[in-house]
Amino acid sequence: MAIQIPRGTQDILPGVVEKWQFIEEQARDLCKRFNYKEIRTPIFEHTDLFQRGVGDTTDIVQKEMYTFEDRGGRSITLRPEGTASTVRSFVENKMFGWADQPVKLYYIGPMFRYERPQSGRYRQFVQFGIEALGSADPAIDAEVISLAMQMYQGLGLTRLKLIINSLGDQESRIAHKNALVSHFTPHISEFCSDCQNRLGTNPLRILDCKKDREHPLMDTAPSILDYLNDESRVYFEKVQDYLNTMGIPFVVDPGLVRGLDYYNHTAFEIMSDAEGFGAITTLSGGGRYNGLAKDLGGPETPGIGFALSIERLLLALQAENIDLPIETGIQCYVVTLGEMAKKKSIHLVNELRKAGLSVETDYLDRKIKAQFKSADRLNAKFVIIIGDEELERNVVSIKDLQAGTQEEVVIETLVDVVKGKLG
Amino acid sequence: MAIQIPRGTQDILPGVVEKWQFIEEQARDLCKRFNYKEIRTPIFEHTDLFQRGVGDTTDIVQKEMYTFEDRGGRSITLRPEGTASTVRSFVENKMFGWADQPVKLYYIGPMFRYERPQSGRYRQFVQFGIEALGSADPAIDAEVISLAMQMYQGLGLTRLKLIINSLGDQESRIAHKNALVSHFTPHISEFCSDCQNRLGTNPLRILDCKKDREHPLMDTAPSILDYLNDESRVYFEKVQDYLNTMGIPFVVDPGLVRGLDYYNHTAFEIMSDAEGFGAITTLSGGGRYNGLAKDLGGPETPGIGFALSIERLLLALQAENIDLPIETGIQCYVVTLGEMAKKKSIHLVNELRKAGLSVETDYLDRKIKAQFKSADRLNAKFVIIIGDEELERNVVSIKDLQAGTQEEVVIETLVDVVKGKLG
Repeated sequence: MAIQIPRGTQDILPGVVEKWQFIEEQARDLCKRFNYKEIRTPIFEHTDLFQRGVGDTTDIVQKEMYTFEDRGGRSITLRPEGTASTVRSFVENKMFGWADQPVKLYYIGPMFRYERPQSGRYRQFVQFGIEALGSADPAIDAEVISLAMQMYQGLGLTRLKLIINSLGDQESRIAHKNALVSHFTPHISEFCSDCQNRLGTNPLRILDCKKDREHPLMDTAPSILDYLNDESRVYFEKVQDYLNTMGIPFVVDPGLVRGLDYYNHTAFEIMSDAEGFGAITTLSGGGRYNGLAKDLGGPETPGIGFALSIERLLLALQAENIDLPIETGIQCYVVTLGEMAKKKSIHLVNELRKAGLSVETDYLDRKIKAQFKSADRLNAKFVIIIGDEELERNVVSIKDLQAGTQEEVVIETLVDVVKGKLG
Repeated sequence: MAIQIPRGTQDILPGVVEKWQFIEEQARDLCKRFNYKEIRTPIFEHTDLFQRGVGDTTDIVQKEMYTFEDRGGRSITLRPEGTASTVRSFVENKMFGWADQPVKLYYIGPMFRYERPQSGRYRQFVQFGIEALGSADPAIDAEVISLAMQMYQGLGLTRLKLIINSLGDQESRIAHKNALVSHFTPHISEFCSDCQNRLGTNPLRILDCKKDREHPLMDTAPSILDYLNDESRVYFEKVQDYLNTMGIPFVVDPGLVRGLDYYNHTAFEIMSDAEGFGAITTLSGGGRYNGLAKDLGGPETPGIGFALSIERLLLALQAENIDLPIETGIQCYVVTLGEMAKKKSIHLVNELRKAGLSVETDYLDRKIKAQFKSADRLNAKFVIIIGDEELERNVVSIKDLQAGTQEEVVIETLVDVVKGKLG
């Protein structure tokens, strides 16, 4: 019996993988322009990292992690997101001592959450994310948001909405937390059991609850914006000021709460209202997490980041009917006729490839007609025809499939002639 | 306390990651030239896949896999290599029905084996591999070997040795297996317990044993080459013929046995005898596996592949003292003087980046001297100086750090002027 792919995961095959390659190249190019450098952390980490770094009370840690013991008895978890690993690496590698601060990093790679699979949601999914550690300048919050927006806009998306909020500093958050507890406590029995737990641990996350979103107390809940202290308010105003300076439209939504515990000050989400989605849909989000490096055993270090799922980005492209400008097709297809020709072709194909050309040939001993069909399907620019008879005259033929023209060239000049034709 | 990276894994940080990027780009370019398309399979698979596809009797399956139960009670394993997953996907996605045969695929990604960490050996390592499924033409064996060699040569490695062998078809293998059993049985008690087990399960793998490699019976063991039937011998001769045609030197070594069960016919390894390694060292290997697709529940399909570890490739580059031609450095560093200038810079930096330039600026409110130092460290071509005083005149200064020249330009022309200077 055939073995199947694990539930909630997918194979990305030729024909589709080119989109992924295109998107990743765009992400890398964007990071180059913004001077973010790549970091690659392991696929798995000690489980502690996510318990501390993502937060013990989050759904991710409580319900969704792939956690197991390795052969040495260590508790290991497949990373559910990229920020905790990046900050772990920042601390462990003492990047806070690097000459250039802030340290600006990006990552692209698979993440893992044991969720119910559905359209655009996989148990293994790929995130592109950036993190800037070591600066508390609101200008870098604006930079992160600008990069995020340009990532989508650069691919042609237009139905984008940027939502921002401030979660304030610790003082503001405590004041707001107390107000939330007072607000929800009298009616907490009407809420789901998760929310009842959240009241004691992290009442802010009640606002993020999917089950209780229709409860009337949600709309009247105290807004964080009314509890920001002066410093937090000025910080948030500057972020908005810089976004305006860059001409990036946004909406302030005090209901925007990020699901992870470590955020403070700026939080943002990018949504799509493309009709293809049916309803407005969150594409990605990010925010500031000034406490995280310290929580993970490093020095107090301000940080801000953002991450998007490529699966969801692909859905957004589909929802806006955007075809990425992907080029496929090869430069040469080498057709052979006869046994001598076959052997000679092995050499010539290899020489053409060594010269940098993309070349295919037949490996099924097929008739010439079938070989030409392959050349067509592969969108070859030129077909190079090697026959036993021509070999005796030391020539091969080059056929230009678009122009329909054909010419004979001396074998030794083949590589140069083809390169010349391709410019 | 700080949380550390799991044992046997590594962070790949800026300063080193550029080498990985360079090598991967080279691999992708090479695959394009040879018309191999990328496939991305999940990081984990059902454990069965590797038990069947790699082989129950191998060290990988018996000792080295990261196997665990997911939250749904399924036995899941982090992939220890790439071939089984690729062939699983080939079967599951019915690629044997695709118009273009053979199906030629490549992958680059992390693999996992619980081994004792040592220099160049990690528990998570990255493999670049290719697989060609659907052709039993010895020309494609030669193509795979040529691609493998060009991967190393393209990066500048010269101390390469290509070793090839044939493991024959099933008939030849059975004849050889019987000869091996007769050879080892009288003295099997002198061998390690693993080898004693292998005698009954897979005696070929005794030849691959690290513990018993000095035993005198090893050198006198029957050679597979003496047991090849006519078809297998002709096949192997053609592969050698094609390698000669392409001018690829090789040595036939009948002792070359690959550690995985699914190989037949062509097997090869690429070694380095660079002095930096101390002793001759295997860099990578590959071979033919005509039975694998059928073992995994698909139709009988010939296949051949190859994989290399990038970690070991990096060691080989080091052993030959090769520096990859990596470009770092940014195009512009924007220096600001004053509060107005800061705000204006946010806009200008963003515009320059939108225009495709790589640009950095200060996010630490530092003095101008420190900003210039950053520009130097980042190897910036131009420093753009924005001051409150110049802003009143609607100009900014551009300093060419190499030429040492400086000029003022009207703000609105900045992007065009800088782009013009960069050509």
